[in-house]
Amino acid sequence: MDRMKKFLEALEEYDGALITPGSNLYYLTGMAPQATEERLFLLVVNKNGESVLIAPKLYENEVEWENVVFWGDDEDPYEVLERVLSSLNLKSGRILVEDTMRASFLIRIEQLLEGYTFYPLSAVTKEMRMRKGEKEIRLMKKAAEIADKVFYEIINRDLVGKTEKQVALEIEFLIRELADGVSFSPIVASGKNAANPHHSPGERKIRRGDFVILDFGARYKGYCSDITRTVAIGYANEKLKEIYEIVKEAQERAFQSVREGIKAKEVDMAARNYIASKGYGEYFIHRTGHGLGLEIHEEPYISQTNERVLENGMTFTIEPGIYVPNLGGVRIEDDVVVEKKGKRLTNAERELIIL
Amino acid sequence: MDRMKKFLEALEEYDGALITPGSNLYYLTGMAPQATEERLFLLVVNKNGESVLIAPKLYENEVEWENVVFWGDDEDPYEVLERVLSSLNLKSGRILVEDTMRASFLIRIEQLLEGYTFYPLSAVTKEMRMRKGEKEIRLMKKAAEIADKVFYEIINRDLVGKTEKQVALEIEFLIRELADGVSFSPIVASGKNAANPHHSPGERKIRRGDFVILDFGARYKGYCSDITRTVAIGYANEKLKEIYEIVKEAQERAFQSVREGIKAKEVDMAARNYIASKGYGEYFIHRTGHGLGLEIHEEPYISQTNERVLENGMTFTIEPGIYVPNLGGVRIEDDVVVEKKGKRLTNAERELIIL
Repeated sequence: MDRMKKFLEALEEYDGALITPGSNLYYLTGMAPQATEERLFLLVVNKNGESVLIAPKLYENEVEWENVVFWGDDEDPYEVLERVLSSLNLKSGRILVEDTMRASFLIRIEQLLEGYTFYPLSAVTKEMRMRKGEKEIRLMKKAAEIADKVFYEIINRDLVGKTEKQVALEIEFLIRELADGVSFSPIVASGKNAANPHHSPGERKIRRGDFVILDFGARYKGYCSDITRTVAIGYANEKLKEIYEIVKEAQERAFQSVREGIKAKEVDMAARNYIASKGYGEYFIHRTGHGLGLEIHEEPYISQTNERVLENGMTFTIEPGIYVPNLGGVRIEDDVVVEKKGKRLTNAERELIIL
Repeated sequence: MDRMKKFLEALEEYDGALITPGSNLYYLTGMAPQATEERLFLLVVNKNGESVLIAPKLYENEVEWENVVFWGDDEDPYEVLERVLSSLNLKSGRILVEDTMRASFLIRIEQLLEGYTFYPLSAVTKEMRMRKGEKEIRLMKKAAEIADKVFYEIINRDLVGKTEKQVALEIEFLIRELADGVSFSPIVASGKNAANPHHSPGERKIRRGDFVILDFGARYKGYCSDITRTVAIGYANEKLKEIYEIVKEAQERAFQSVREGIKAKEVDMAARNYIASKGYGEYFIHRTGHGLGLEIHEEPYISQTNERVLENGMTFTIEPGIYVPNLGGVRIEDDVVVEKKGKRLTNAERELIIL
């Protein structure tokens, strides 16, 4: 596989890798085994490109890999691992391990084996994954289109009187009919709750006069979308309407600033400086965006301090917001890919909609 | 807190613990912070019972703990950790770490700190959590009642022509209206697909003549239920009807065998021996059950080899099944608590229902 080859070339200073299920395994091999958290499921790779998959016997009918060792419930998978490492000539050295591997697995491995030092796999994979290929962009575009579609479907329903939790559940249901699932649990924050950017949807009922932040995304063939729109219910409070226009212009300015070769922080500052110039600087309390792809949060982060230079194929969100305690909040978020300039993947209406 | 006290008493040979969010943190402190995977959120405890919570600044308004150190995006949380360990006099020693902590966190901690050895936290907590208290049993009973209720609701709908995936989604939706969420992704396995006990719901449409395995559960205030019923659609194939009666009797025999003081494996063998006596031994390809509580799979496992003696307050599933390739399968599962004898928490109809 092409990506696996690139991975082996990038290994350089490492001797091998232990890869448990997750976005890196999927990225490198296409494997996405379900429900393997408690049982050891591990791809062992050495720098010659030889690999052995260690998998629970339960998966015998699901797994395809050239060299597989299945272990049964009467075996110790760590002894299997020891043999596999030996057969791959990985008797010592610098080993990458999947970042999300359970600490309890790593502790067992460290007890069993001496002469190894361990490093997080992301040290190698995050660079590879940051620049998306054409096929990946197509999948992300599809995930983004689903998010757009779900936005129009949900605002066509009568939201007044529903709790935030109900609306969040309806959004999730809509997404799951069109995609593999949600890329994260939808956020629905209404009225004063919208002043908290990390609000968990609760029992508050949506009512006339609310501004409601809707923040959600789809996962399509592994790839994530992430959209936020803020809508007014019934009528628009003047103060929040003013804030809405500021956030919309900040989001547009950040988007227009995107181009190959600038630093991530310049995109952040385009939004941040505009909001500050309008007197709301202290109410923009998070970074402007985050990379997304196989994970909902990955590199490059669009923050005030990120010196990373943007390259073609990088994908990230632009999502400035203003949050005023005891009043409410506004956030507008799109997914963007760098193709010389920025190109939006999400395209749902950005003008204020009054439902 | 009472559980934290017991935990400190049980620490004995360890000097302290590093506890990231998950079922153990919830069990010991009641804290269940959301979405903390990428940022270090950690309770540090020493054996004198002194503790400091390290949390991202984002959580400033959500977290309540006597001693908290919040870290901002411009700080290195591992340097904060170093200072906290020092302030708690944990400069070396045997440290427990939460099993599900990310390996990348542990690697960073190991790079930073010398003189520590690490052990999985479950070494101490799994014994504590295995015997549920009265309040825990009440919550599990509630989770089980929700599962019963959802079973009756879903079989009152017309399933013919729906895909397995649609039915699974409807089950999830029903659960989420009544509980915090699902305890795992519902399994719907129809016709020949039911011959695979780990089938993922797919695009196959349910039709007359199918036996359909429905396996799902609710999570209520952290506690899990897990139920399986197998229903026939339209009419019942004679062979599968025979199998159904065998599984039902095996499940009943295993349930009747439960009592304080016997070994977990005796419960397994009660089901297994009966199925073998009817000639289907080779088609019962998994263990009879698993413990459940804050996690959907925990101790005690009801397997052929588990010598663990059952005690009052232990909770587990009893779920024998028979799976015949190219024909289909039957599984019947209840949640059971040991109260001298066994007591079922799930009670939905166990006689064969033909829809």
